[in-house]
Amino acid sequence: MTLHLEPVIRLPQTSVARGVFAEGERVLPEETPVALTYNGSTHAVMMASPADLEDFALGFSLSEGIIADRSELTSMEVIEHELGCEIRMWLQESCSGAYRSRRRAMAGPLGCGLCGVESLEEAVRPASKVAGTLQLPPKAIAAAMADLSEAQRLNREARAIHAAALWRPEQGLIAIREDIGRHNALDKLAGALARADEPCSASMVLLTSRVSVEMVQKAARMGAPIIAAISAPTALAVRVAEGCGITLVAVAREESFEVFTHPERVQHLGS
Amino acid sequence: MTLHLEPVIRLPQTSVARGVFAEGERVLPEETPVALTYNGSTHAVMMASPADLEDFALGFSLSEGIIADRSELTSMEVIEHELGCEIRMWLQESCSGAYRSRRRAMAGPLGCGLCGVESLEEAVRPASKVAGTLQLPPKAIAAAMADLSEAQRLNREARAIHAAALWRPEQGLIAIREDIGRHNALDKLAGALARADEPCSASMVLLTSRVSVEMVQKAARMGAPIIAAISAPTALAVRVAEGCGITLVAVAREESFEVFTHPERVQHLGS
Repeated sequence: MTLHLEPVIRLPQTSVARGVFAEGERVLPEETPVALTYNGSTHAVMMASPADLEDFALGFSLSEGIIADRSELTSMEVIEHELGCEIRMWLQESCSGAYRSRRRAMAGPLGCGLCGVESLEEAVRPASKVAGTLQLPPKAIAAAMADLSEAQRLNREARAIHAAALWRPEQGLIAIREDIGRHNALDKLAGALARADEPCSASMVLLTSRVSVEMVQKAARMGAPIIAAISAPTALAVRVAEGCGITLVAVAREESFEVFTHPERVQHLGS
Repeated sequence: MTLHLEPVIRLPQTSVARGVFAEGERVLPEETPVALTYNGSTHAVMMASPADLEDFALGFSLSEGIIADRSELTSMEVIEHELGCEIRMWLQESCSGAYRSRRRAMAGPLGCGLCGVESLEEAVRPASKVAGTLQLPPKAIAAAMADLSEAQRLNREARAIHAAALWRPEQGLIAIREDIGRHNALDKLAGALARADEPCSASMVLLTSRVSVEMVQKAARMGAPIIAAISAPTALAVRVAEGCGITLVAVAREESFEVFTHPERVQHLGS
């Protein structure tokens, strides 16, 4: 599939600096509605960068728990429409049953009065437990974040584009994916790794963004024992990382960072 | 209603700088699942900062087109559960009909094969046309952004929290709302303004974030002719702002900014 849409585009603008106007151009990130359909029915429309859309669809399907394994997707087709992209996915028969009952649950009976609570339980369902004995010295974390910054190809062109990457000792960056949305970038990474059969168990997930609870849940489902992010986590993200056994490193800048959970995976110098 | 949850919280962390470890604390933004229910059925669960939740629920209902006017909400109750908050809203009978048919459309028939396209049309439905003859000199835009920065109370405590505000010539900041999510912050602002019967027609919406297409659609529904944002827009946001008549000012920092659409609302010096 060849998308005509490009993830970045140059547009005209007027710069105004201290009252002086100048006509110019700026490279901006594109944003495309992507409809994700399963068995002919739309599950969600996500606004995303039009790049690596197969990775996105596979990663989204795994992150959302629609499939447990990529073999449960029997086909995937990316179709470009005038208004955006549609990704048509078909599920294995055995999987479709679970998907249909989940859809029914989401629609919910009218007027039962309990749906709010059930929906909250669904939203904060316990993240997968992550084990993994990976330990890293502080220098390795700083080096990984520097590698991440180097590899942000789209962001170098248009700025304001997030990235998620997987990094492993001795091997460095295994994969990186970029998107205007930080959740999308992580879903794309999850999809790319699933497609390549790359395990995350002895690896660190790198993020250019803040860390919300959903980012921790996605990393837990991937099985990554360490998350390192440029910006800060939310308090709920910290609690969920604590509960599921993930080491949460954040506010990572140059040679310094902060560890919010399970600091035993960060080696003291000389140890 | 008194929420026990606070929008920011102090948590322990370990700082690591050049290999030196130190135990400390950091103030982080809280993140709470908020279930929005209409007539006893959950419409969405959003992750939000637990503050100004009534504004959020009203603004979300308006932004999503579930109601056209706040009088269509007959009641709203915020209920705190162990896992998060539920906002129970009941709709006027006349409104409920439209809401029910929209829900039916969202569920969609299985296997029709057209849902992807219909969903894309729904996602990029034309934004409301914005008129308004407001014109501002560059100095006013820079001054408004400085006012915004001053007024970010939660962000000053915990960083990494977005804000949306309404600003009007001669009056300055009319209202500001903060949230971990930039879309939520704008929905909270829309709700606060609707509750106070404040029109947006001769006003500018200020954003601390990037500008995605949904931010433009929300501002258009509010009727604000100018958006000014600290960070960059997406290309789709520019196209939609162009189409609906909004002046999109972005990358606004100190005394400089860039204008991407309808620059006629930014006055040249001496004019």
